[in-house]
Amino acid sequence: MILQHKSLDFETKGNKATYFEIRQQCRDFVAETGVKDGILVVQSPHTTCAVFFEEMVHDVDALGDDFLCRDLNKGLELVFPKQKTYSDYYAYPGTKHFEFGAGRPGSELAKNKAILLNADAHLKATLIGSETTFIIRDGELLTGSFGYIYFVDFDGNRARKRKCNLTVMGV
Amino acid sequence: MILQHKSLDFETKGNKATYFEIRQQCRDFVAETGVKDGILVVQSPHTTCAVFFEEMVHDVDALGDDFLCRDLNKGLELVFPKQKTYSDYYAYPGTKHFEFGAGRPGSELAKNKAILLNADAHLKATLIGSETTFIIRDGELLTGSFGYIYFVDFDGNRARKRKCNLTVMGV
Amino acid sequence: MILQHKSLDFETKGNKATYFEIRQQCRDFVAETGVKDGILVVQSPHTTCAVFFEEMVHDVDALGDDFLCRDLNKGLELVFPKQKTYSDYYAYPGTKHFEFGAGRPGSELAKNKAILLNADAHLKATLIGSETTFIIRDGELLTGSFGYIYFVDFDGNRARKRKCNLTVMGV
Repeated sequence: MILQHKSLDFETKGNKATYFEIRQQCRDFVAETGVKDGILVVQSPHTTCAVFFEEMVHDVDALGDDFLCRDLNKGLELVFPKQKTYSDYYAYPGTKHFEFGAGRPGSELAKNKAILLNADAHLKATLIGSETTFIIRDGELLTGSFGYIYFVDFDGNRARKRKCNLTVMGV
Repeated sequence: MILQHKSLDFETKGNKATYFEIRQQCRDFVAETGVKDGILVVQSPHTTCAVFFEEMVHDVDALGDDFLCRDLNKGLELVFPKQKTYSDYYAYPGTKHFEFGAGRPGSELAKNKAILLNADAHLKATLIGSETTFIIRDGELLTGSFGYIYFVDFDGNRARKRKCNLTVMGV
Repeated sequence: MILQHKSLDFETKGNKATYFEIRQQCRDFVAETGVKDGILVVQSPHTTCAVFFEEMVHDVDALGDDFLCRDLNKGLELVFPKQKTYSDYYAYPGTKHFEFGAGRPGSELAKNKAILLNADAHLKATLIGSETTFIIRDGELLTGSFGYIYFVDFDGNRARKRKCNLTVMGV
Protein backbone atom coordinates (compact mmCIF):
# COMPACT_ATOMS: atom_id res chain seq x y z
CA MET A 1 0.00 0.00 0.00
CA ILE A 2 1.13 3.55 -0.81
CA LEU A 3 0.46 6.29 1.73
CA GLN A 4 1.53 9.88 1.10
CA HIS A 5 0.74 13.25 2.63
CA LYS A 6 0.77 16.79 1.28
CA SER A 7 -0.22 20.20 2.60
CA LEU A 8 -1.57 23.06 0.54
CA ASP A 9 -0.86 26.58 1.82
CA PHE A 10 -3.24 29.51 1.55
CA GLU A 11 -3.44 33.10 2.66
CA THR A 12 -6.64 35.01 3.30
CA LYS A 13 -6.99 38.78 3.43
CA GLY A 14 -9.36 38.70 6.35
CA ASN A 15 -12.15 40.64 4.73
CA LYS A 16 -14.67 37.87 3.93
CA ALA A 17 -15.18 34.12 3.68
CA THR A 18 -12.43 33.05 1.29
CA TYR A 19 -12.83 30.12 -1.09
CA PHE A 20 -9.97 28.24 -2.78
CA GLU A 21 -10.68 25.83 -5.62
CA ILE A 22 -8.19 22.96 -5.33
CA ARG A 23 -9.24 20.18 -7.70
CA GLN A 24 -6.22 20.46 -9.96
CA GLN A 25 -3.87 20.44 -6.98
CA CYS A 26 -5.62 17.31 -5.70
CA ARG A 27 -5.36 15.63 -9.10
CA ASP A 28 -1.68 16.53 -9.38
CA PHE A 29 -0.96 15.09 -5.94
CA VAL A 30 -2.78 11.84 -6.75
CA ALA A 31 -0.69 11.56 -9.95
CA GLU A 32 2.55 12.19 -8.00
CA THR A 33 1.79 9.37 -5.57
CA GLY A 34 1.30 6.87 -8.38
CA VAL A 35 -1.83 5.51 -6.66
CA LYS A 36 -4.30 4.07 -9.16
CA ASP A 37 -6.96 2.84 -6.74
CA GLY A 38 -7.67 4.14 -3.28
CA ILE A 39 -8.85 7.29 -1.54
CA LEU A 40 -7.89 10.93 -1.17
CA VAL A 41 -8.73 12.50 2.20
CA VAL A 42 -8.97 16.31 2.14
CA GLN A 43 -9.01 17.68 5.70
CA SER A 44 -8.86 21.09 7.31
CA PRO A 45 -6.95 21.34 10.61
CA HIS A 46 -8.57 24.74 11.26
CA THR A 47 -11.99 25.04 12.91
CA THR A 48 -13.20 27.99 10.82
CA CYS A 49 -12.40 26.14 7.59
CA ALA A 50 -14.28 23.48 5.63
CA VAL A 51 -13.91 21.25 2.58
CA PHE A 52 -16.69 20.55 0.08
CA PHE A 53 -17.54 19.37 -3.42
CA GLU A 54 -19.42 21.72 -5.73
CA GLU A 55 -20.06 22.40 -9.39
CA MET A 56 -17.59 24.29 -11.55
CA VAL A 57 -19.11 27.68 -12.31
CA HIS A 58 -18.03 30.33 -14.78
CA ASP A 59 -19.20 33.62 -13.27
CA VAL A 60 -17.86 35.51 -10.29
CA ASP A 61 -19.35 38.37 -8.28
CA ALA A 62 -17.79 41.76 -7.59
CA LEU A 63 -15.77 40.28 -4.69
CA GLY A 64 -14.32 37.55 -6.88
CA ASP A 65 -16.44 34.73 -5.44
CA ASP A 66 -17.84 32.03 -7.70
CA PHE A 67 -21.61 32.37 -7.93
CA LEU A 68 -22.34 29.14 -6.01
CA CYS A 69 -19.93 30.17 -3.24
CA ARG A 70 -21.70 33.52 -3.01
CA ASP A 71 -25.04 31.69 -2.83
CA LEU A 72 -23.67 29.32 -0.20
CA ASN A 73 -22.72 32.33 1.94
CA LYS A 74 -26.29 33.59 1.64
CA GLY A 75 -27.87 30.41 2.95
CA LEU A 76 -25.34 29.85 5.73
CA GLU A 77 -25.90 33.42 6.89
CA LEU A 78 -29.56 32.55 7.57
CA VAL A 79 -28.53 29.77 9.95
CA PHE A 80 -25.51 31.44 11.54
CA PRO A 81 -25.60 35.22 10.99
CA LYS A 82 -22.33 37.17 11.12
CA GLN A 83 -21.34 37.83 14.72
CA LYS A 84 -21.20 41.57 15.32
CA THR A 85 -21.13 42.08 19.07
CA TYR A 86 -19.71 40.37 22.13
CA SER A 87 -22.09 37.86 23.72
CA ASP A 88 -25.30 39.00 22.12
CA TYR A 89 -26.80 36.52 19.67
CA TYR A 90 -24.02 34.00 20.34
CA ALA A 91 -22.71 32.82 23.71
CA TYR A 92 -19.23 32.44 22.16
CA PRO A 93 -16.50 33.55 22.78
CA GLY A 94 -17.06 33.92 26.54
CA THR A 95 -14.92 35.57 29.20
CA LYS A 96 -12.53 32.70 29.92
CA HIS A 97 -11.95 31.98 26.26
CA PHE A 98 -11.20 35.61 25.58
CA GLU A 99 -8.71 35.74 28.46
CA PHE A 100 -7.09 32.52 27.25
CA GLY A 101 -6.66 33.91 23.74
CA ALA A 102 -5.47 37.34 24.80
CA GLY A 103 -3.01 35.87 27.28
CA ARG A 104 -1.05 33.83 24.73
CA PRO A 105 2.40 35.20 23.82
CA GLY A 106 2.27 37.52 20.80
CA SER A 107 -1.50 37.32 20.72
CA GLU A 108 -3.16 39.48 18.06
CA LEU A 109 -6.27 39.29 20.19
CA ALA A 110 -4.71 41.42 22.93
CA LYS A 111 -4.39 44.21 20.36
CA ASN A 112 -7.70 43.76 18.58
CA LYS A 113 -10.46 42.24 20.67
CA ALA A 114 -12.97 42.15 17.83
CA ILE A 115 -11.17 39.39 15.92
CA LEU A 116 -12.58 36.80 18.31
CA LEU A 117 -16.12 37.61 17.15
CA ASN A 118 -16.09 34.74 14.67
CA ALA A 119 -18.63 32.37 16.20
CA ASP A 120 -20.47 32.24 12.88
CA ALA A 121 -17.30 31.16 11.04
CA HIS A 122 -16.78 28.23 13.42
CA LEU A 123 -20.39 27.14 13.11
CA LYS A 124 -20.61 27.49 9.32
CA ALA A 125 -17.49 25.32 9.06
CA THR A 126 -19.09 22.71 11.33
CA LEU A 127 -22.19 22.66 9.16
CA ILE A 128 -20.22 22.10 5.95
CA GLY A 129 -17.72 19.73 7.55
CA SER A 130 -13.96 19.71 8.07
CA GLU A 131 -13.21 16.85 5.69
CA THR A 132 -14.32 15.18 2.48
CA THR A 133 -12.98 11.90 1.09
CA PHE A 134 -12.83 11.16 -2.64
CA ILE A 135 -12.40 7.82 -4.40
CA ILE A 136 -9.48 7.23 -6.78
CA ARG A 137 -10.33 4.62 -9.43
CA ASP A 138 -8.10 3.63 -12.36
CA GLY A 139 -5.90 6.64 -11.56
CA GLU A 140 -8.81 9.08 -11.71
CA LEU A 141 -10.26 11.17 -8.90
CA LEU A 142 -14.04 10.59 -9.09
CA THR A 143 -15.23 14.18 -9.26
CA GLY A 144 -16.92 13.94 -12.64
CA SER A 145 -16.04 16.50 -15.33
CA PHE A 146 -17.70 19.43 -13.60
CA GLY A 147 -17.13 18.71 -9.93
CA TYR A 148 -14.74 21.06 -8.15
CA ILE A 149 -13.18 20.71 -4.68
CA TYR A 150 -13.25 23.75 -2.42
CA PHE A 151 -11.34 24.67 0.72
CA VAL A 152 -12.92 27.64 2.50
CA ASP A 153 -12.06 29.79 5.48
CA PHE A 154 -15.26 31.38 6.79
CA ASP A 155 -13.30 33.66 9.13
CA GLY A 156 -13.24 37.12 7.62
CA ASN A 157 -12.03 38.92 10.74
CA ARG A 158 -8.30 38.83 10.03
CA ALA A 159 -5.75 37.76 7.44
CA ARG A 160 -4.72 34.16 8.10
CA LYS A 161 -2.21 31.63 6.82
CA ARG A 162 -4.07 28.37 6.36
CA LYS A 163 -3.25 24.79 5.49
CA CYS A 164 -5.36 22.12 3.82
CA ASN A 165 -4.07 18.59 4.41
CA LEU A 166 -4.23 15.85 1.78
CA THR A 167 -3.56 12.15 2.25
CA VAL A 168 -3.63 9.48 -0.45
CA MET A 169 -3.94 5.83 0.55
CA GLY A 170 -4.13 3.06 -2.00
CA VAL A 171 -2.38 0.80 -4.44
CA MET B 1 -5.03 -5.28 1.77
CA ILE B 2 -8.15 -5.71 -0.35
CA LEU B 3 -9.39 -2.73 -2.39
CA GLN B 4 -12.48 -2.99 -4.57
CA HIS B 5 -14.77 -0.53 -6.31
CA LYS B 6 -18.41 -0.67 -7.37
CA SER B 7 -20.88 1.78 -8.88
CA LEU B 8 -24.61 1.81 -8.26
CA ASP B 9 -26.80 3.18 -11.05
CA PHE B 10 -29.95 5.22 -10.56
CA GLU B 11 -32.50 7.05 -12.64
CA THR B 12 -34.56 10.01 -11.48
CA LYS B 13 -37.76 11.26 -13.07
CA GLY B 14 -36.84 14.90 -12.67
CA ASN B 15 -39.90 15.96 -10.74
CA LYS B 16 -38.52 16.26 -7.19
CA ALA B 17 -35.58 15.47 -4.91
CA THR B 18 -35.19 11.71 -5.30
CA TYR B 19 -33.97 9.48 -2.49
CA PHE B 20 -32.53 5.99 -2.90
CA GLU B 21 -32.02 3.74 0.13
CA ILE B 22 -28.88 1.67 -0.51
CA ARG B 23 -27.92 -0.08 2.72
CA GLN B 24 -28.55 -3.60 1.43
CA GLN B 25 -26.54 -2.89 -1.73
CA CYS B 26 -23.69 -1.61 0.44
CA ARG B 27 -23.85 -4.70 2.67
CA ASP B 28 -23.90 -7.01 -0.35
CA PHE B 29 -20.86 -5.29 -1.84
CA VAL B 30 -18.92 -5.55 1.43
CA ALA B 31 -19.75 -9.27 1.55
CA GLU B 32 -18.61 -9.74 -2.09
CA THR B 33 -15.21 -8.18 -1.35
CA GLY B 34 -14.56 -10.56 1.54
CA VAL B 35 -13.31 -7.66 3.68
CA LYS B 36 -13.89 -8.29 7.38
CA ASP B 37 -12.27 -5.13 8.80
CA GLY B 38 -11.87 -1.81 7.05
CA ILE B 39 -13.94 0.99 5.60
CA LEU B 40 -16.64 1.57 2.98
CA VAL B 41 -16.52 4.95 1.25
CA VAL B 42 -19.84 6.00 -0.35
CA GLN B 43 -19.28 8.98 -2.67
CA SER B 44 -21.36 10.92 -5.16
CA PRO B 45 -19.54 12.18 -8.27
CA HIS B 46 -22.47 14.54 -9.00
CA THR B 47 -22.71 17.98 -7.40
CA THR B 48 -26.50 17.95 -6.90
CA CYS B 49 -26.31 14.60 -5.07
CA ALA B 50 -25.43 13.70 -1.49
CA VAL B 51 -24.93 10.67 0.76
CA PHE B 52 -26.18 10.41 4.33
CA PHE B 53 -27.07 8.08 7.20
CA GLU B 54 -30.61 8.16 8.58
CA GLU B 55 -33.09 6.04 10.49
CA MET B 56 -35.16 3.37 8.79
CA VAL B 57 -38.76 4.60 8.65
CA HIS B 58 -41.94 2.77 7.78
CA ASP B 59 -44.26 5.42 6.37
CA VAL B 60 -44.09 7.23 3.05
CA ASP B 61 -45.89 10.35 1.84
CA ALA B 62 -48.06 10.71 -1.24
CA LEU B 63 -44.96 11.21 -3.44
CA GLY B 64 -43.37 8.01 -2.15
CA ASP B 65 -40.78 9.71 0.07
CA ASP B 66 -39.90 8.27 3.47
CA PHE B 67 -41.17 10.56 6.21
CA LEU B 68 -37.69 11.64 7.36
CA CYS B 69 -36.67 12.41 3.77
CA ARG B 70 -39.80 14.52 3.38
CA ASP B 71 -38.93 16.31 6.63
CA LEU B 72 -35.34 16.79 5.49
CA ASN B 73 -36.65 18.51 2.33
CA LYS B 74 -38.68 20.86 4.51
CA GLY B 75 -35.70 22.04 6.58
CA LEU B 76 -33.32 22.33 3.63
CA GLU B 77 -35.91 24.43 1.81
CA LEU B 78 -35.68 27.03 4.60
CA VAL B 79 -31.95 27.43 4.03
CA PHE B 80 -31.90 27.11 0.23
CA PRO B 81 -35.38 27.69 -1.21
CA LYS B 82 -36.21 26.22 -4.63
CA GLN B 83 -34.81 28.39 -7.39
CA LYS B 84 -37.64 29.66 -9.57
CA THR B 85 -36.25 32.49 -11.66
CA TYR B 86 -33.00 33.42 -13.36
CA SER B 87 -30.67 35.49 -11.16
CA ASP B 88 -33.11 36.64 -8.54
CA TYR B 89 -32.56 35.15 -5.09
CA TYR B 90 -29.48 33.27 -6.28
CA ALA B 91 -26.55 34.61 -8.31
CA TYR B 92 -26.17 31.18 -9.96
CA PRO B 93 -26.17 30.20 -12.80
CA GLY B 94 -24.82 33.40 -14.38
CA THR B 95 -24.44 34.39 -18.00
CA LYS B 96 -21.12 32.70 -18.75
CA HIS B 97 -22.15 29.46 -17.07
CA PHE B 98 -25.37 29.39 -19.05
CA GLU B 99 -23.53 29.98 -22.33
CA PHE B 100 -21.01 27.26 -21.43
CA GLY B 101 -23.78 24.76 -20.72
CA ALA B 102 -25.91 25.63 -23.74
CA GLY B 103 -22.88 25.53 -26.04
CA ARG B 104 -21.94 21.93 -25.32
CA PRO B 105 -22.77 19.39 -28.10
CA GLY B 106 -26.22 17.83 -27.66
CA SER B 107 -26.95 20.10 -24.73
CA GLU B 108 -30.42 19.74 -23.25
CA LEU B 109 -29.96 23.23 -21.88
CA ALA B 110 -30.07 24.79 -25.34
CA LYS B 111 -33.61 23.38 -25.67
CA ASN B 112 -34.83 24.08 -22.15
CA LYS B 113 -33.17 26.96 -20.38
CA ALA B 114 -35.03 26.45 -17.12
CA ILE B 115 -33.22 23.22 -16.25
CA LEU B 116 -30.21 25.23 -15.11
CA LEU B 117 -32.26 26.82 -12.33
CA ASN B 118 -31.02 24.27 -9.80
CA ALA B 119 -28.84 26.40 -7.52
CA ASP B 120 -30.76 25.11 -4.51
CA ALA B 121 -30.02 21.49 -5.46
CA HIS B 122 -26.26 22.17 -5.60
CA LEU B 123 -26.32 23.97 -2.27
CA LYS B 124 -28.50 21.41 -0.46
CA ALA B 125 -26.08 18.70 -1.61
CA THR B 126 -23.14 20.74 -0.28
CA LEU B 127 -24.85 21.10 3.08
CA ILE B 128 -25.48 17.35 3.42
CA GLY B 129 -22.14 16.34 1.92
CA SER B 130 -21.00 14.34 -1.09
CA GLU B 131 -19.56 11.43 0.84
CA THR B 132 -19.95 9.36 3.99
CA THR B 133 -17.54 6.67 5.20
CA PHE B 134 -18.67 3.67 7.22
CA ILE B 135 -16.61 1.27 9.33
CA ILE B 136 -16.57 -2.48 8.59
CA ARG B 137 -15.86 -4.54 11.72
CA ASP B 138 -15.92 -8.33 11.94
CA GLY B 139 -17.57 -8.39 8.52
CA GLU B 140 -20.38 -6.07 9.57
CA LEU B 141 -21.11 -2.55 8.31
CA LEU B 142 -21.58 -0.45 11.47
CA THR B 143 -24.97 1.05 10.74
CA GLY B 144 -26.80 -0.42 13.71
CA SER B 145 -30.06 -2.33 13.13
CA PHE B 146 -32.08 0.72 12.14
CA GLY B 147 -29.57 2.89 10.30
CA TYR B 148 -30.14 3.27 6.57
CA ILE B 149 -27.82 4.73 3.93
CA TYR B 150 -29.32 7.20 1.45
CA PHE B 151 -28.14 8.53 -1.89
CA VAL B 152 -30.16 11.57 -2.96
CA ASP B 153 -30.34 13.74 -6.05
CA PHE B 154 -31.79 17.13 -5.04
CA ASP B 155 -32.13 18.18 -8.69
CA GLY B 156 -35.78 17.87 -9.66
CA ASN B 157 -35.52 19.85 -12.91
CA ARG B 158 -34.93 16.94 -15.27
CA ALA B 159 -34.67 13.16 -15.43
CA ARG B 160 -31.08 12.10 -14.79
CA LYS B 161 -28.98 8.95 -14.84
CA ARG B 162 -26.88 9.00 -11.69
CA LYS B 163 -24.08 6.94 -10.19
CA CYS B 164 -23.10 6.40 -6.59
CA ASN B 165 -19.54 5.14 -6.13
CA LEU B 166 -18.54 2.63 -3.46
CA THR B 167 -15.02 1.63 -2.44
CA VAL B 168 -14.08 -0.96 0.17
CA MET B 169 -10.58 -0.93 1.65
CA GLY B 170 -9.52 -3.36 4.33
CA VAL B 171 -8.38 -6.84 5.26
CA MET C 1 -0.87 -2.11 7.16
CA ILE C 2 -2.25 -1.79 10.68
CA LEU C 3 -6.02 -1.75 11.15
CA GLN C 4 -7.58 -1.47 14.60
CA HIS C 5 -11.02 -0.70 15.97
CA LYS C 6 -12.25 0.78 19.22
CA SER C 7 -15.63 1.84 20.61
CA LEU C 8 -16.21 4.67 23.04
CA ASP C 9 -19.21 4.33 25.36
CA PHE C 10 -21.43 7.18 26.48
CA GLU C 11 -24.57 7.71 28.50
CA THR C 12 -26.97 10.60 28.07
CA LYS C 13 -29.53 11.76 30.60
CA GLY C 14 -32.20 12.38 28.01
CA ASN C 15 -32.86 15.99 28.86
CA LYS C 16 -31.09 17.80 26.00
CA ALA C 17 -28.65 17.43 23.11
CA THR C 18 -25.58 15.96 24.79
CA TYR C 19 -22.05 16.70 23.59
CA PHE C 20 -18.97 14.62 24.38
CA GLU C 21 -15.49 15.97 23.63
CA ILE C 22 -13.33 13.02 22.59
CA ARG C 23 -10.04 14.34 21.17
CA GLN C 24 -7.86 12.93 23.93
CA GLN C 25 -9.52 9.53 23.61
CA CYS C 26 -8.89 9.63 19.86
CA ARG C 27 -5.24 10.60 20.38
CA ASP C 28 -4.76 7.84 22.94
CA PHE C 29 -6.25 5.26 20.59
CA VAL C 30 -3.98 6.37 17.73
CA ALA C 31 -0.98 6.06 20.04
CA GLU C 32 -2.09 2.55 21.16
CA THR C 33 -2.27 1.34 17.56
CA GLY C 34 1.29 2.46 16.81
CA VAL C 35 0.16 3.94 13.49
CA LYS C 36 2.35 6.89 12.43
CA ASP C 37 0.73 7.68 9.08
CA GLY C 38 -2.83 6.97 8.04
CA ILE C 39 -6.38 7.90 8.95
CA LEU C 40 -8.74 7.82 11.91
CA VAL C 41 -12.40 7.32 11.05
CA VAL C 42 -14.83 8.49 13.77
CA GLN C 43 -18.33 7.19 13.05
CA SER C 44 -21.65 7.14 14.85
CA PRO C 45 -23.81 4.03 14.39
CA HIS C 46 -26.82 5.93 15.79
CA THR C 47 -29.02 8.11 13.59
CA THR C 48 -29.61 10.85 16.16
CA CYS C 49 -25.85 11.25 16.73
CA ALA C 50 -23.16 13.11 14.80
CA VAL C 51 -19.41 13.68 14.79
CA PHE C 52 -17.75 17.03 14.14
CA PHE C 53 -14.60 19.12 14.52
CA GLU C 54 -14.81 22.39 16.44
CA GLU C 55 -12.68 24.83 18.38
CA MET C 56 -11.72 24.23 22.00
CA VAL C 57 -13.66 26.70 24.13
CA HIS C 58 -13.27 27.62 27.76
CA ASP C 59 -16.72 28.71 28.90
CA VAL C 60 -19.81 26.62 29.50
CA ASP C 61 -23.44 27.64 29.91
CA ALA C 62 -25.75 26.85 32.84
CA LEU C 63 -26.49 23.40 31.35
CA GLY C 64 -22.81 22.54 31.09
CA ASP C 65 -22.58 22.95 27.31
CA ASP C 66 -19.51 24.54 25.72
CA PHE C 67 -20.42 27.92 24.26
CA LEU C 68 -19.98 26.84 20.63
CA CYS C 69 -22.13 23.73 21.22
CA ARG C 70 -24.81 25.95 22.73
CA ASP C 71 -24.56 28.24 19.68
CA LEU C 72 -24.70 25.25 17.35
CA ASN C 73 -27.96 24.18 19.00
CA LYS C 74 -29.37 27.64 18.35
CA GLY C 75 -28.68 27.58 14.61
CA LEU C 76 -29.80 23.97 14.10
CA GLU C 77 -33.05 24.79 15.90
CA LEU C 78 -33.85 27.34 13.18
CA VAL C 79 -33.62 24.66 10.50
CA PHE C 80 -35.16 21.76 12.42
CA PRO C 81 -37.16 23.03 15.41
CA LYS C 82 -37.73 20.69 18.35
CA GLN C 83 -40.59 18.32 17.60
CA LYS C 84 -43.37 18.82 20.12
CA THR C 85 -46.44 17.11 18.75
CA TYR C 86 -47.30 14.03 16.73
CA SER C 87 -47.42 14.69 12.98
CA ASP C 88 -47.70 18.43 13.01
CA TYR C 89 -44.67 20.26 11.64
CA TYR C 90 -42.94 16.97 10.81
CA ALA C 91 -44.39 13.97 8.98
CA TYR C 92 -42.21 11.66 11.12
CA PRO C 93 -42.73 9.34 12.93
CA GLY C 94 -45.90 8.11 11.16
CA THR C 95 -48.39 5.46 12.12
CA LYS C 96 -46.58 2.38 10.83
CA HIS C 97 -43.27 3.45 12.32
CA PHE C 98 -44.92 4.02 15.68
CA GLU C 99 -46.56 0.59 15.60
CA PHE C 100 -43.24 -1.02 14.61
CA GLY C 101 -41.44 0.63 17.51
CA ALA C 102 -44.12 -0.02 20.10
CA GLY C 103 -44.47 -3.65 19.02
CA ARG C 104 -40.85 -4.61 19.68
CA PRO C 105 -40.26 -6.75 22.82
CA GLY C 106 -39.54 -4.63 25.90
CA SER C 107 -40.20 -1.44 23.96
CA GLU C 108 -39.96 1.75 26.00
CA LEU C 109 -42.12 3.33 23.35
CA ALA C 110 -45.16 1.25 24.34
CA LYS C 111 -44.95 2.87 27.78
CA ASN C 112 -44.11 6.42 26.68
CA LYS C 113 -45.28 7.37 23.22
CA ALA C 114 -43.70 10.83 23.32
CA ILE C 115 -40.13 9.52 23.08
CA LEU C 116 -40.60 8.95 19.36
CA LEU C 117 -41.05 12.69 18.80
CA ASN C 118 -37.39 13.13 17.89
CA ALA C 119 -37.60 13.97 14.18
CA ASP C 120 -35.49 17.06 14.79
CA ALA C 121 -32.71 15.01 16.40
CA HIS C 122 -32.50 12.70 13.36
CA LEU C 123 -32.41 15.63 10.97
CA LYS C 124 -29.88 17.70 12.93
CA ALA C 125 -27.60 14.65 12.97
CA THR C 126 -28.00 14.28 9.19
CA LEU C 127 -27.07 17.92 8.69
CA ILE C 128 -23.89 17.64 10.76
CA GLY C 129 -23.00 14.17 9.47
CA SER C 130 -22.51 10.75 11.01
CA GLU C 131 -18.77 10.53 10.41
CA THR C 132 -15.59 12.59 10.17
CA THR C 133 -12.19 11.30 9.09
CA PHE C 134 -8.92 12.74 10.39
CA ILE C 135 -5.42 12.40 8.99
CA ILE C 136 -2.59 10.89 11.10
CA ARG C 137 0.83 12.24 10.06
CA ASP C 138 4.12 11.49 11.81
CA GLY C 139 2.13 10.01 14.69
CA GLU C 140 0.03 13.13 15.14
CA LEU C 141 -3.71 13.55 14.63
CA LEU C 142 -4.07 16.67 12.47
CA THR C 143 -6.48 18.65 14.62
CA GLY C 144 -4.20 21.61 15.25
CA SER C 145 -3.64 22.78 18.83
CA PHE C 146 -7.15 24.10 19.35
CA GLY C 147 -9.29 21.69 17.37
CA TYR C 148 -11.54 19.41 19.37
CA ILE C 149 -13.53 16.37 18.23
CA TYR C 150 -17.14 16.10 19.34
CA PHE C 151 -19.61 13.23 19.44
CA VAL C 152 -23.16 14.48 20.00
CA ASP C 153 -26.53 12.86 20.59
CA PHE C 154 -29.24 15.34 19.58
CA ASP C 155 -31.97 13.14 21.08
CA GLY C 156 -33.03 14.66 24.38
CA ASN C 157 -36.20 12.59 24.79
CA ARG C 158 -34.74 9.77 26.86
CA ALA C 159 -31.57 8.56 28.54
CA ARG C 160 -29.53 6.50 26.08
CA LYS C 161 -26.43 4.35 26.03
CA ARG C 162 -24.46 5.34 22.97
CA LYS C 163 -21.35 4.17 21.15
CA CYS C 164 -18.92 6.07 18.96
CA ASN C 165 -16.82 3.85 16.71
CA LEU C 166 -13.18 4.55 15.87
CA THR C 167 -11.03 2.85 13.27
CA VAL C 168 -7.37 3.52 12.56
CA MET C 169 -5.87 2.40 9.23
CA GLY C 170 -2.29 3.09 8.35
CA VAL C 171 1.37 2.21 8.72
